[in-house]
Amino acid sequence: MMKHLPLSEVYQLLEPGPVVLLTTARNGRANVMAMSWHMMVEFEPPLVGCVVSSADYSFAALRATRECVIAIPALDLAPKVVKVGNCSGRDVEKFQKFGLTPAPAERVRAPLIAECFANLECKTADTRLVNKYNLFVLEVLKAWIDPTQKDAKTIHHHGYGRFAVDGEMIKLTSTMR
Amino acid sequence: MMKHLPLSEVYQLLEPGPVVLLTTARNGRANVMAMSWHMMVEFEPPLVGCVVSSADYSFAALRATRECVIAIPALDLAPKVVKVGNCSGRDVEKFQKFGLTPAPAERVRAPLIAECFANLECKTADTRLVNKYNLFVLEVLKAWIDPTQKDAKTIHHHGYGRFAVDGEMIKLTSTMR
Repeated sequence: MMKHLPLSEVYQLLEPGPVVLLTTARNGRANVMAMSWHMMVEFEPPLVGCVVSSADYSFAALRATRECVIAIPALDLAPKVVKVGNCSGRDVEKFQKFGLTPAPAERVRAPLIAECFANLECKTADTRLVNKYNLFVLEVLKAWIDPTQKDAKTIHHHGYGRFAVDGEMIKLTSTMR
Repeated sequence: MMKHLPLSEVYQLLEPGPVVLLTTARNGRANVMAMSWHMMVEFEPPLVGCVVSSADYSFAALRATRECVIAIPALDLAPKVVKVGNCSGRDVEKFQKFGLTPAPAERVRAPLIAECFANLECKTADTRLVNKYNLFVLEVLKAWIDPTQKDAKTIHHHGYGRFAVDGEMIKLTSTMR
């Protein structure tokens, strides 16, 4: 189902700013949250900056295990993404409740999400800005792409459940990687 | 032309992941670069993380002056954005060459860009990750929005000049800010 994606191409998935899901696993229990505060930091090995609020249940799991998966949902998952974002793993088994399928990752204990068109296995690379800003720098160890979800349209959060969906793709002459 | 935008609403502009322009001014000379590696870090006062490569001419200006403007272009500026990204301020007076209009900011010396639909005046708030990752944490001091560019469509870089343009806006019931 999932194909290996070269690490050098990971930035093309995150740089456009899609809403993503972040999974963690701690003491045998998996959890998932919605996240829009992320950016690329380096091409290869791919480094990703992200903010996981200390109010989020995932924060303690990410800090303790130093592992997570960033899963990228396409438009058809938008209603589930919003539901994931509107409750906490403190109260809810989100994978079960929202019908998301955890799949084993190769390099980390946090699960992939089978329904997402891309999954990035990550470990924590730098925690210097965690205490002040909840800002983690992650390294992507392994990347997966679902070849059956070609040209997946992603969603971009504008606040309070309003999302811009990817529209037209344009191509301009550029030497910028 | 530009209206004041409450700082509490800045995140709604950057969270969706648009390509932005970043201006600096040093020794009386303004420069501008294209940037996609940015994310929100805090709602209010708005903090923004961004990566400005040490290979970019803007890096030294940002590090020395600790000031910049993040200007958000709409789709009609896409050809200029790509041109800005494909040359360096070392060689080119980009504002003049590409017909971008610098406008005075209120809190920083870096210029606003009159053609952009939003402009965020920023100062450096944290430089701990600059040496290792070129990662700056900026604080937005003042935000401007052009009310004549309503529902501006932004562009999202997928690499090598391919951009997704904002398409349909969807609204799902959510309590997530």
